[in-house]
Amino acid sequence: MKAYQELSREELLALQAQLQAEYEDAKGKGLQLDMSRGKPAATQLNLAGGMMEVLTADSDMKASNGFDVRNYGVLDGIPEAKQLMADMMGVKAENVVVCGNASLTIMYDTISRSMTHGVLGSTPWCKLDTVKFLCPAPGYDRHFAITQHFGIEMITIPMTPAGPDMDMVEKLVSEDASIKGIWCVPKYSNPQGYSYSDETVKRFAALKPAAEDFRIFWDNAYVIHHLYADKQDEILEILSECEKAGNADMVYEFCSTSKVSYAGAGIAAIASSKANLDWMKKSMTIQTIGYDKVNQLRHVRYYKDINGINAHMMKHADLLRPKFEAVLKVLDAELTGLGIGEWTRPNGGYFISFEAMEGCAKAIVAKCKEAGMVLTGAGATYPYGKDPKDSNIRIAPSFPTPEEMAVATDLFVLCVKLVSVEKLLEQ
Amino acid sequence: MKAYQELSREELLALQAQLQAEYEDAKGKGLQLDMSRGKPAATQLNLAGGMMEVLTADSDMKASNGFDVRNYGVLDGIPEAKQLMADMMGVKAENVVVCGNASLTIMYDTISRSMTHGVLGSTPWCKLDTVKFLCPAPGYDRHFAITQHFGIEMITIPMTPAGPDMDMVEKLVSEDASIKGIWCVPKYSNPQGYSYSDETVKRFAALKPAAEDFRIFWDNAYVIHHLYADKQDEILEILSECEKAGNADMVYEFCSTSKVSYAGAGIAAIASSKANLDWMKKSMTIQTIGYDKVNQLRHVRYYKDINGINAHMMKHADLLRPKFEAVLKVLDAELTGLGIGEWTRPNGGYFISFEAMEGCAKAIVAKCKEAGMVLTGAGATYPYGKDPKDSNIRIAPSFPTPEEMAVATDLFVLCVKLVSVEKLLEQ
Repeated sequence: MKAYQELSREELLALQAQLQAEYEDAKGKGLQLDMSRGKPAATQLNLAGGMMEVLTADSDMKASNGFDVRNYGVLDGIPEAKQLMADMMGVKAENVVVCGNASLTIMYDTISRSMTHGVLGSTPWCKLDTVKFLCPAPGYDRHFAITQHFGIEMITIPMTPAGPDMDMVEKLVSEDASIKGIWCVPKYSNPQGYSYSDETVKRFAALKPAAEDFRIFWDNAYVIHHLYADKQDEILEILSECEKAGNADMVYEFCSTSKVSYAGAGIAAIASSKANLDWMKKSMTIQTIGYDKVNQLRHVRYYKDINGINAHMMKHADLLRPKFEAVLKVLDAELTGLGIGEWTRPNGGYFISFEAMEGCAKAIVAKCKEAGMVLTGAGATYPYGKDPKDSNIRIAPSFPTPEEMAVATDLFVLCVKLVSVEKLLEQ
Repeated sequence: MKAYQELSREELLALQAQLQAEYEDAKGKGLQLDMSRGKPAATQLNLAGGMMEVLTADSDMKASNGFDVRNYGVLDGIPEAKQLMADMMGVKAENVVVCGNASLTIMYDTISRSMTHGVLGSTPWCKLDTVKFLCPAPGYDRHFAITQHFGIEMITIPMTPAGPDMDMVEKLVSEDASIKGIWCVPKYSNPQGYSYSDETVKRFAALKPAAEDFRIFWDNAYVIHHLYADKQDEILEILSECEKAGNADMVYEFCSTSKVSYAGAGIAAIASSKANLDWMKKSMTIQTIGYDKVNQLRHVRYYKDINGINAHMMKHADLLRPKFEAVLKVLDAELTGLGIGEWTRPNGGYFISFEAMEGCAKAIVAKCKEAGMVLTGAGATYPYGKDPKDSNIRIAPSFPTPEEMAVATDLFVLCVKLVSVEKLLEQ
C-alpha cells in the first residue's frame, strides 16, 4: 500500500468512506477496553500470591538487626529491605531509605520538602519568585502533575532514543539558576521505552548547574522490568557516575516494587548521597516514626534477594510480552509504509509510544473512546497536558489480555487511518 | 510520713544521706529499663498475630466495591476500611479518608499542604510572615515537633483535667488571625490521660476564629484505648458538634490502628467535612495513586467491624492495666503525703503524667538515666522542649513488663525523693 500522502483526493475519499464504514461496524460491537494506565493485570498480581503467606502468626517478626518490625521505629527501613532495594538500583544499601508503598509519594514529598525547607540548606523554593523544572517529553504525566501542583514552571526537553536532548539540558541548567530539577525515567522510559545511552548518563553526571540546589529526579521505575530474557537494556548507575564527576549530591534515584509485587502495596525507596539523605531524614523523622516494616519484611522473606526478584520479573515478562507483541503485530501489519504513524519497540517497561501525524492525536483518542476504548488522554505525556504537535499517544498494553490487545489495536489502527485521512483531506 | 517541706534541715540532710545510699545501691544493680516512648509491648503485638493469616494466596482480594486491592487506585480507601475507621471515631464513612500506616504522617502532610497550598483556598501559610499554633501542654512532643519544623510559632495553653484552658483558647483564637490551629489529644490525653469535658468540646465547636483557615487538629489517638471495661471515658463527637455550631469545616480528626494492630503497620485515617476532604484530595491525588489497600483489607478481614476491634482492645487493656497499676501502687505507697509530686490516674491511653516540684524534672530524669532507666526527656511535653516550671515527667508504662514497671517505679520514686530533698536543701 502507498503512503497516504501519495494518494489522490479521490483515493482518499474512497478510503475514508471504506474506513468510516469499518468504524461504524466497530462501534456496533460495544467494546469496553481500557488501555489508559500502566496497571498490572490480575494475572501479574497473582504471581506474588505467595507473599501473602510468608508471614504467619508464628513467624519471627524480627528484622536482621533484631528489631521487631511490628513496632515503632527504624526510620530508614530494615537492613535487608535496604539491601534488596539497593540491589535493584545497583547502589549501596547505605545510600538507600526504604519508605512506604509508592515512589510517587517519595517524589512528591521530596519536592514538597524542597518548597518548605530547601535543599541541603538552600533557600526554600516557596520563597523564590520562580522555580523551573526541565521535563523531557513525551514523559510521565504524574511527574508533570507534581511540578504543576507546586507552581513550578515546566520546560519541555525533546526526547531522543538515547535520552533527553543533552545539548539543551546542559545549556539551560548551566545558564539558569531558577532551574532546580529535571524529571528522568532513564530506563524503558515512560512512554517510549527508551533507555538512556552511556553518553547521556555521563553527561547528566557531569552537569554544571547554575543552581546549587539543582537535582536530577532519576525515576528508575522500570529498572528490572524487562520484556525479554535475551534483550535487556542496561544503563550506567547514576549515583556512582555523579560521584565520579564530583557531583555526588546532584541526584535522587527512586524505585519501587509496585510492578514487581503489588501496584498498591509494594515498597518504595530513594537512593542518594549521605548528605542528601541526612537532610531528608531531618524532615522524615518529623513526618513519621517509621514506614511499614512488616511489608518490608514480607517482601524480603518472599523474594529472598535480587535473584529472587529477577526470576519473578521473568514471569511478569512472560505475561507482558505477548501483549506488547500483539500490539506490535497489528501496528506492523496495518500501518507500515502508510506514513501516518511511528511507534516504539521497547525491550521493557509498560508502554508503547505512538507518534501520529501532527494534529491527529486528540482526534484519534476521541475516536477510540467513541468506539469503547479508553486511551491515556492525548497531551498527557507533555507538561501542562499540552503536546505542541498533538501527535503523541501512549499505549498501555499491560492490563487487557493479549486477545483484547489485538482487538484494541485493530480498533486503534482503524482510528489512526480514519483520522489521518480526514486530516489529509482538510489540507 | 511528713511532707518534705515540713522537715528540718537536719532531717533533710539525714534523709538525703539515706536516699543517696539507696541510690548508689540501685545504680549497682545495672538496670536497663526504657520507659521513654508509648510503644506497645511484644505481648500486645502478638494479639494481632492472626491478622498475618487472614489473607492467603487464594484469598478473594477484592474490596466490597469490586476493586482489586492489589492494584493501583481508590484514593480514599476501600469502603469497608472507611466504615471501620469511621466507626472508631463515631463519624460517617463519607467523612473519612483512610491513608497509610501513621496518623502522624497525615498530620504532617496536612500542615505541609497548608504551608504550600493554604487551606480551602486561603493564602499558603508559607507566604505569611507569621503563623501560630496553640499547644495545650503538657502535650505530645511529636505534634510540637511538626509545628516547630515548619517554623510555626507555638503558644502554650495550660491543660486542666477538663481539657485546655478554654478561656485562653477562645480569647486568642478570636483576636489573632495569625493563629491557624491548635493541637488536641481530646481523649486520654498524652501525657495526662485527661479527657475533654462536654463543655470543652462544645466550646471548641463554637470557637469564632479570626482566621478563616484556623483548624482544630483533633488527634483522637486513644479513642478506644481504655484500660478498664467498667471505667471508660467518653467524649462528644467533634465533627457533628462543629457542624451544629455552624463550623463544619473547622476540624480535622485523626486516628489510627497503630496501638490496635501494629505500631509500625496499622492503618490511619482522617475525618473532616466534605469541603476539607475535597480540598485535601486535590493534593493527595498528586501525591499518591492510592494508599496500601491490601493492609486495609487485612485489617477489615481480621477485625470484621468495630465490635471486633473493641473486643481486641479489651485484650490490650488486660495487658496494660497491670503495668499502670504497678506504677500507681508504688507512687501511692511511696509518695503520698510527701508534697513532692502529683500524678494522674487515667482510665485509658498510654501515659501517666507526673508533676514534680518546680525545677526538679530535668534532675529526676537525669538521675534515673544514671541508674539505667530512660524516661522521656524532661521538657518534651512542652513546645520547644521547654517546660517553664521544669516539673512535668511523662511515664510510659506500656513497653516493660509489670514486674519491670514496679522495679522502674521504685527507682523513679527514689530519684524523685532524692532530687526533691536536694532542691529543698538549696533553698
